[in-house]
Amino acid sequence: MKVFVIGAHGQIGKLLVAQLLDRGDEVVAGIRDTKQRSFFEDQGAATQLFDLNEQPEEMAKVLKGVDAVVFSAGSGGKTGDDQTLLIDLDGAVKSMEATQKAGIKRFVIVSAMNAEDRTLWTAIKPYYVAKHYADLYLKDETNLDYTIIKPGVLTNEAGKGGIQLNQHKGQIAREDVAEVIVATLHNDQTIKKEFAISEGKTPVSEAVNQV
Amino acid sequence: MKVFVIGAHGQIGKLLVAQLLDRGDEVVAGIRDTKQRSFFEDQGAATQLFDLNEQPEEMAKVLKGVDAVVFSAGSGGKTGDDQTLLIDLDGAVKSMEATQKAGIKRFVIVSAMNAEDRTLWTAIKPYYVAKHYADLYLKDETNLDYTIIKPGVLTNEAGKGGIQLNQHKGQIAREDVAEVIVATLHNDQTIKKEFAISEGKTPVSEAVNQV
Repeated sequence: MKVFVIGAHGQIGKLLVAQLLDRGDEVVAGIRDTKQRSFFEDQGAATQLFDLNEQPEEMAKVLKGVDAVVFSAGSGGKTGDDQTLLIDLDGAVKSMEATQKAGIKRFVIVSAMNAEDRTLWTAIKPYYVAKHYADLYLKDETNLDYTIIKPGVLTNEAGKGGIQLNQHKGQIAREDVAEVIVATLHNDQTIKKEFAISEGKTPVSEAVNQV
Repeated sequence: MKVFVIGAHGQIGKLLVAQLLDRGDEVVAGIRDTKQRSFFEDQGAATQLFDLNEQPEEMAKVLKGVDAVVFSAGSGGKTGDDQTLLIDLDGAVKSMEATQKAGIKRFVIVSAMNAEDRTLWTAIKPYYVAKHYADLYLKDETNLDYTIIKPGVLTNEAGKGGIQLNQHKGQIAREDVAEVIVATLHNDQTIKKEFAISEGKTPVSEAVNQV
């Protein structure tokens, strides 16, 4: 499978690219800066400059020819909320539109635990608002074969290989999130599904069969 | 007609309340602060505390019993983009949900010229993003009898009484925007319509028949 990773140079993105390559998938790493090129090419991934500030028509040209798109980009905690609106919401939606324009059906997005229910939003509310409406657009305004993966609080611990589904609190290692994305891409049972993930005891491959 | 104005103490809101009262409508001014009460009650409007940070269930209780809801609230240029997300996007959507929960059908929102087309967004992009997705929600995720009014650059000049429809640039006096809202509320031909407004030569009452 040939996978385009939007946000490849992010914390989850880097882990995801490595795991996809390990599994034998072809990867195109979407990067913002040519300086990030060698990091990915040395591992065996292709790279493409991909700018979330572009219009979908331009973005679609870059995506063409892959089997699946993963959106794991995030504006991050260090930028302003203008970037939350422009990257996490509108950048995500433009990526969906571009995927459709490129004739690709499969789209996997990293959202956030509880994004669907605003009564559960506590800290970083603007981020939840952005995720909430991006997810809604994906479900209701596109015909993509989507999966929405909603991790709990992200950690940099080593992956545990086990998760639990659909809790409303909990943490999860980024490495496990990447493993869930890989398993999701290779399991069509996850199409048109959304689910929360946190650390737990069910092996990832088994858990994605239950979503 | 009994109209609830969300954002009554805003620049358009104040003009709107006065014009509705002039026309003989009943007005409930949604206010954020009890200090704003006398301003409206002295004119003959009722007031209700209305908090866009509440959940829709709470907001619905306050809206109950009116014929129409107007959303003319805005986070304004002086607050951060977190407020753009929380007020202009999620606050607007919660107001729509609350209107539905209260059993009210009619909902008029003040959006922004070009909100539908991101290739035309120049300055204040986060504001357009918020307006874009709020409008989309109203059209596609509710069953409200909506009207989306999209003014050009707002001025504090005296109203001219004439507008033109669906331009992509231009300015308009807030007083004229208020007149368009009043005419829209009283013209069912505007239901399920969205249109841009800027200053022009067509009398407002005539223009709203052509949307």
